[in-house]
Order: sequence, then C-alpha cells, then structure tokens
Amino acid sequence: MIPSINFCSECGNSVEQKIPDGETLLRAVCPNCQTIHYQNPKIVAGCIPEWKGKILLCRRAIEPRLGFWTFPAGFMELGESTEEAAARETHEEANARVEIQSLYALFSLPYVSQVYVVYRALLQDLDYGPGEESLEVQLMPIKAIPWDQLAFPVIRETLHRYAEDTQRPQVQTHFGLIPK
Amino acid sequence: MIPSINFCSECGNSVEQKIPDGETLLRAVCPNCQTIHYQNPKIVAGCIPEWKGKILLCRRAIEPRLGFWTFPAGFMELGESTEEAAARETHEEANARVEIQSLYALFSLPYVSQVYVVYRALLQDLDYGPGEESLEVQLMPIKAIPWDQLAFPVIRETLHRYAEDTQRPQVQTHFGLIPK
Repeated sequence: MIPSINFCSECGNSVEQKIPDGETLLRAVCPNCQTIHYQNPKIVAGCIPEWKGKILLCRRAIEPRLGFWTFPAGFMELGESTEEAAARETHEEANARVEIQSLYALFSLPYVSQVYVVYRALLQDLDYGPGEESLEVQLMPIKAIPWDQLAFPVIRETLHRYAEDTQRPQVQTHFGLIPK
Repeated sequence: MIPSINFCSECGNSVEQKIPDGETLLRAVCPNCQTIHYQNPKIVAGCIPEWKGKILLCRRAIEPRLGFWTFPAGFMELGESTEEAAARETHEEANARVEIQSLYALFSLPYVSQVYVVYRALLQDLDYGPGEESLEVQLMPIKAIPWDQLAFPVIRETLHRYAEDTQRPQVQTHFGLIPK
C-alpha cells in the first residue's frame, strides 16, 4: 500500500535513507536538494446513509474485494474536509446525495496505514444508483446486512457497532484500532 | 504545505499532470512507469492531558508559531494508530506519559489539507518537562489558558470547546471545519 521512494520528486536525484537531524525515524532524504520525503497515513472518509431505518450499501465493482458490500467510502483528497470527502464518495459510488449528521466512528488500521472516518448521514432522496465503482446499490434494513459478504474488517466492525447502536437509546462515537 | 511533484519517486522520470482513466482530478502521472502519484491530507494527532482539573500545555520551541502555546500534537506516522500517535507526540513534546481516554475532536483544515484528531487523556504522573520541540511545559487550570498566545486557530477552537464542556454534565465529541 505504501509506495517506496527511490527518487526525489522535487529534483529527480536518487534519495538516501537516513535519520534527519533532530528526528528519530528513517526518511527518504535527497542529498542534492535536501528535501525530506515524509510518508503519512491516509484518511478514508465515508458515511452510513440512512433512510427511515434502512441504510444504503454498495457492492464493489473494483478490486480489492470486487463483488463485496460496503458503505460509501474512499480516500480523502487535498483541500476538502472529511465531511465533504464522505459526501463526495457517496455521490461517486452511489449517485446519492446525503446530509452529514454526526461523527460515528474513527478507526485506525495501522497495518495498512489508513484511518477510517465514518459519519452518519441522511439520504436526501431515493434517486440513487450504482456509480462506476459499484455493481449495485441497495437500501436495506439492518437485519438484511450481508454480514458474510462485507468488503473489509473495518466495514464489518463499523456496521456491527451500528447494528448494536440501533438497539440503544443514545448513539455514541466509536474509536479504536482494527487489527489485521 | 503540499510539496509539488516534478519527478517520479519510483523511476526518476519527469511526471506529467493528467487526469488518469476513470478519475476526475489532475494527478502527477509518470509516462515511463505509469505510476500515479496521489497526494492526500495529513493527520495531526494530539491530546489534552488532564490531571485533577488541570491540563498540560506546551510552549513551542519551533516554527511555525515559536513561543506560542499548544496541547501536544503532531503528524501521525506510518504504522501507528491515532491513539499511539497522540501518546507518542505527548512523550516527545512534554516528556509525559498519558493514557488515552476518549475521542474529543476531529477537525478538518482544508486550506492546509490537515485533519486534527484530538483525544482526552489522563496524565499518568507529574514527571514531565519540555522535549526538544518545547520551550516549557505547564500544567494549568482552564482559567489560566493563555487565549491570546495559542499557536493555531484549531488549538484555540478545541480548547474553547473544552473549556465550555467543563461546565457541562456530559462531554461530547466535536467535529467540523476550521476556516482559514
């Protein structure tokens, strides 16, 4: 998931692996222009779109996990907020418009250096359908969630907690670590 | 804040700015090895270390905003969780050990493509002091927070909400956007 850095993206020189002054970790450093190339975890922003007790899930049309189900989510882009990223991904994957309601979960996946940020959202209308990255999109009741056909452990964990929360008077914000 | 990409970090070739097939945004793409160089927002993880109604703040020894106050926070590294990153930064900046308690805030700063993840934490003992990036570290009551000497708008917003929450029976998780 994390690409190697062989050359300096600034000047094109070969980089060296070294610990910069005042730091503690090995970095790719350019001996020509002295640029330090930091690599950091990526944010996956998504939401659980709700409509009268049902939620909108997408079946993936792309690898990894083609054919498996997920809520709309994808990599956050430069210059947007996590809420905007979650709404954008929902529009791209499910052709759906949502209004972000509340922060539902923040999960770290250190083994792939990803952080999932998941919101609860209100689906604005029933005019939805598969975007290019989805095979199909379905509005389904909690009891119809296809537990053995979910795309990733983080999707399963989030929806598992969500299903439990629907039995509770007050919804909480979840956080923690998803192991490999 | 966001470095330009001129050369391919994989093969060293000059990159082109183009919209890859199936995508909608301009990316740096290598015409030699076809690598698409994505750039994504960075996570700043931090915490508010608590000890008997006081919180631990650091005065910055580095630019930007040298001499101004902040809670411990810094860029998340590959392979760690946001909780680990917040605790590590607290150790680096304040030589302090904390136990992460709960997710307190998630704020997007789209104008610098950063996302702040802030936890409430329990300071484990009073053996703290300035790390290399801090001029001084102080445990202070809420009413002593130096509001006109805080390092960044996101620090002010987070501590402002925190100070308000100390007047409330139940602490909530905050989220939203910090404008420029």
